[in-house]
Amino acid sequence: MTAALLPRVGIGVDVHPFSPDRPLWLAGLHWPGEPGLAGHSDADVVIHALCNALLSAAGLGDLGTQFGTAEPEWRDAAGTRLLTETVRLVRDAGYAVGNAAVQLLGERPKLRERRTEAEQLLTETVGAPIALSAATTDGLGFLGRRDGLAAVATALVFPAR
Amino acid sequence: MTAALLPRVGIGVDVHPFSPDRPLWLAGLHWPGEPGLAGHSDADVVIHALCNALLSAAGLGDLGTQFGTAEPEWRDAAGTRLLTETVRLVRDAGYAVGNAAVQLLGERPKLRERRTEAEQLLTETVGAPIALSAATTDGLGFLGRRDGLAAVATALVFPAR
Amino acid sequence: MTAALLPRVGIGVDVHPFSPDRPLWLAGLHWPGEPGLAGHSDADVVIHALCNALLSAAGLGDLGTQFGTAEPEWRDAAGTRLLTETVRLVRDAGYAVGNAAVQLLGERPKLRERRTEAEQLLTETVGAPIALSAATTDGLGFLGRRDGLAAVATALVFPAR
Repeated sequence: MTAALLPRVGIGVDVHPFSPDRPLWLAGLHWPGEPGLAGHSDADVVIHALCNALLSAAGLGDLGTQFGTAEPEWRDAAGTRLLTETVRLVRDAGYAVGNAAVQLLGERPKLRERRTEAEQLLTETVGAPIALSAATTDGLGFLGRRDGLAAVATALVFPAR
Repeated sequence: MTAALLPRVGIGVDVHPFSPDRPLWLAGLHWPGEPGLAGHSDADVVIHALCNALLSAAGLGDLGTQFGTAEPEWRDAAGTRLLTETVRLVRDAGYAVGNAAVQLLGERPKLRERRTEAEQLLTETVGAPIALSAATTDGLGFLGRRDGLAAVATALVFPAR
Repeated sequence: MTAALLPRVGIGVDVHPFSPDRPLWLAGLHWPGEPGLAGHSDADVVIHALCNALLSAAGLGDLGTQFGTAEPEWRDAAGTRLLTETVRLVRDAGYAVGNAAVQLLGERPKLRERRTEAEQLLTETVGAPIALSAATTDGLGFLGRRDGLAAVATALVFPAR
């Protein structure tokens, strides 16, 4: 395994406050009846953490660096569109995505019943295995007070040949 | 290195509030005289984060997906039992654990004097190197207020041959 | 790829409260006019998270294990000095750094304009690619209240040959 073929690891965190009047988009899915998240784009905190991890693994900065959080082009932008664009940037930089894993942190919604559906959507969008998981903070901190949601992600990329 | 042999990375966070009447189990060890953590199982936040990272790397969801946080079977369950079961699930899915690393976040207990003992126990339980570390939040947030403990972990798994 | 050549992954989080009377050192750079961080060393939260991730990947504990947070030797110590020493420890343990990625979490300063400068300094200090990124918590929690800064990092190391 020569240096040129070494994998690279990345990490990404994202946080958004709840904004109950907006629809909730999470992990690329619409969650009817659940309070939404505030943000310039659709505020899909799972996908944003995932994009940050992928960009970080490829040394490409973060969502703010690449897309500009205030640009009109990304107003209400779907998370899946940001993810598709992120994967394109990673490929253009000469990397293939190995896999990525993202964990939702917060009290609700419960991911369990739609976890497989969300994983399939993310995996198809990225073209590599994306694992999705979740945990609560057992009532502690701003996540426990249901002020918002957070997500943390890691990704592995490989030099494309 | 063909695609079939690529490593996969995972991530896992866990949080539990203190419950002073319970014994503290942390990183598989009993900590006499230290306030315990609330939870359905033994609430070993270090092992739970580690399990979440291992399951996530193998695309197997999280502790809730696999074990059900409210199942009678896991009431007061030892962290090491959950970890042994997690490693079995990862192997059954066709992966070998490369290594994992877990960091405890909070004010107390201080891990330093028992870090090597805990690492050996975790490493023997998993059958692969497990690194343990710690940090405080310097008094900030719910961890700084000593409301509970958190842990964050990452893991690398490889397709077993 | 034999077991002896497997990469190892690590993780590291660090948090410091603001201490406005101190100069801000972040990612190895001085940030004139920005409130500093409290700590025994220069409190460079980005470099501390990075060191923790590198030590964790190599199974060498954390900054407290290796350097002692209260030792006179490290009073006001520059982050880059800690990072250089950390890389030496990782090498002495038989590992080469593959890459690392670190994300700053907090409201300010904005990294964007100096991200490339900081990445170059960290990459030269480590001798391997270091990715730097940032996110806010959108006003939530102690980071949103501007009580301090946090950073989260991951690293990949390889057995040196």
